Amino acid sequence: MSLNIQSEIDIMKVASSKINEVDFENLTFGNVFTDHMLVCDFKEGAWQKPAIKPYEPFLLDPSAKVFHYGQAIFEGMKAYKTEDDSVWLFRPDENYIRFNKSAERMCMPEVPESVFLDGLKELLKIEKDWVKKGKGNTLYIRPFMIAIGSGVVAQPSTQYRFMIILSPARAYYSGEVKVLVADYYSRAANGGIGAAKAAGNYSGQFYPTKLANEQGFQQVIWTDDSTHTKLEEAGTMNVFFRINDTLYTAPTSERILDGVTRKSLIDLAKREGIHVDVRPVLVSELVEGAKNGTLKEIFGAGTAAVVNPIVGFSYQDTYYELPKIENSMALALKEKLTNIQYKLAEDTFGWTVKV
Amino acid sequence: MSLNIQSEIDIMKVASSKINEVDFENLTFGNVFTDHMLVCDFKEGAWQKPAIKPYEPFLLDPSAKVFHYGQAIFEGMKAYKTEDDSVWLFRPDENYIRFNKSAERMCMPEVPESVFLDGLKELLKIEKDWVKKGKGNTLYIRPFMIAIGSGVVAQPSTQYRFMIILSPARAYYSGEVKVLVADYYSRAANGGIGAAKAAGNYSGQFYPTKLANEQGFQQVIWTDDSTHTKLEEAGTMNVFFRINDTLYTAPTSERILDGVTRKSLIDLAKREGIHVDVRPVLVSELVEGAKNGTLKEIFGAGTAAVVNPIVGFSYQDTYYELPKIENSMALALKEKLTNIQYKLAEDTFGWTVKV
Ligand SMILES: Cc1ncc(COP(=O)(O)O)c(C=O)c1O
Ligand SMILES: Cc1ncc(COP(=O)(O)O)c(C=O)c1O
Repeated sequence: MSLNIQSEIDIMKVASSKINEVDFENLTFGNVFTDHMLVCDFKEGAWQKPAIKPYEPFLLDPSAKVFHYGQAIFEGMKAYKTEDDSVWLFRPDENYIRFNKSAERMCMPEVPESVFLDGLKELLKIEKDWVKKGKGNTLYIRPFMIAIGSGVVAQPSTQYRFMIILSPARAYYSGEVKVLVADYYSRAANGGIGAAKAAGNYSGQFYPTKLANEQGFQQVIWTDDSTHTKLEEAGTMNVFFRINDTLYTAPTSERILDGVTRKSLIDLAKREGIHVDVRPVLVSELVEGAKNGTLKEIFGAGTAAVVNPIVGFSYQDTYYELPKIENSMALALKEKLTNIQYKLAEDTFGWTVKV
Repeated sequence: MSLNIQSEIDIMKVASSKINEVDFENLTFGNVFTDHMLVCDFKEGAWQKPAIKPYEPFLLDPSAKVFHYGQAIFEGMKAYKTEDDSVWLFRPDENYIRFNKSAERMCMPEVPESVFLDGLKELLKIEKDWVKKGKGNTLYIRPFMIAIGSGVVAQPSTQYRFMIILSPARAYYSGEVKVLVADYYSRAANGGIGAAKAAGNYSGQFYPTKLANEQGFQQVIWTDDSTHTKLEEAGTMNVFFRINDTLYTAPTSERILDGVTRKSLIDLAKREGIHVDVRPVLVSELVEGAKNGTLKEIFGAGTAAVVNPIVGFSYQDTYYELPKIENSMALALKEKLTNIQYKLAEDTFGWTVKV
């Protein structure tokens, strides 16, 4: 804990804010950024002094390692504003720890807490007007680190840049979500980087997702690459399956991201007396459940989308539509989770952190 | 074929070359770049006019997709200079085709031949003094494409930048190379992006390679991620195994890069009457061969290193040293290949292309 963090960050403010140019009612996800960003460079084996400065493009050498070898990681978090105008984070320590796990797997330096967490809070204080009140309004937080050292030899960089940028956001997905269950393409290898929030994991999904989109599916649910029989996760969400009144979700592994939303929903569901079974879920169980009517719900869980109900899935050219149900667990859990995030319900877990 | 390519590229030359500052006798791979680079942007669904201009850093938005989602691909080629001062490329069409295959897998636009191949030739004409005569001297060519569109939603970019940068180079590896055969970590998934020269494939190898380095091994030979029983390739090289007098190498697949050096060596070896067997090679065969003395050679094959003899390998904590042999196939094939590349032997295959 640094008591006097302000003095440890260089702060350069914009002359005038662009906030009045932003239409907060009509935001598309991740396109508008706030006035300032946090920047901190790593060189000669040490993190330099962080700076909060105007959001703006920066120069990189054409041979920067991030361009050639994809040495880059990120996180995704949100800030929420309550009726009394205070700003809150949701389990930021989890993102901080996961970021450094990703860093280790990608051979990048650990980012200190004073830069990631204290720096984030400082940035949020400056940008507090960008966090809007009202459920559904959030400020999406994107901490990331890229290899900025130059040279086209395939080796880890010796220079890195850590940054935090902020983007006001509303819901991530809109409309009905139908998914394709992967039977050929994969997201992650055994012994690979799937559990890290590494840049390369995401672009690898673009092409198979495009093929799915062309067939009318918004997302792909990935399966294990060896057998394509076990359900893993979606592009930026973990997935839950409700069979009768039990919730199933795959255990996290070196192939699956350990989602904060996922683990929070598991705890919330258990508290509500819902039976949660964390074990490998087979595609065959899903198909079986869809056929005999025991499969009641499928939903994705992630920071951007929160909880994303899925109306049906396709597997090997057969489409299975889920029944319309009352008492959706997905929606009930989403309500409970967002109530905690917006401080509308008591946070018995101690998940929320005031900025 | 464009007859009048010069007029289709904007050319801006440096005021004075930095070539005299470069110590061509003491180059470390990939750190020095020539005076100019080729740049061509893709936006609004079309490739813009390419430009050859001074090598220099460029500006990118902090939310550029390449930083967050690793949408980036590259190629690696070389230019060679003969005694009569002409400059040659080796099978550039292969790199061009592979580049566009990588582009497709990473959901990026195809680059036109006029930009990639004609642009490269134009750039090489300007930089011809950077290609030095004498075997071992080359100009390493790095074409690459990055997603430059902004926005942190995990979707393909709509804007891209294609670039070619050039780096004078000598040998890539120096000293004895010992390798570790992977039994836990992996490079590529079934249905993944392993066959593409995608940026994310390389940074994923940094950490396991660092662990191998710490144990005294320069490289990792990857195995299939499902069973870790099949030998695949090294970080930036395909691999060959000589058992008795037969050369074995794995078939290329969606997990293994289709190397130009590999396929050229196969053709060369066949022409020399060497028996080449392209089939999955098991780790157990390697261990067996090392124990009973039938395993004579292991070598890597790739543009940067050309042919890289490997003196021994470790698998599950046992180190197997290869016998010192005369009549190394690796060295004989390397000699034949480089003789073709430097126009010291007749190019019966039609592989070399004059700039
Ligand atoms: C691959 C992947 N899975 C799951 C998630 C969900 O994780 P979280 O709930 O921490 O946002 C994300 C990201 O946000 C992700 O990128
Ligand atoms: C993963 C990988 N395998 C093999 C090779 C060898 O391919 P080439 O002979 O075309 O250089 C490379 C690269 O150059 C590579 O990156």
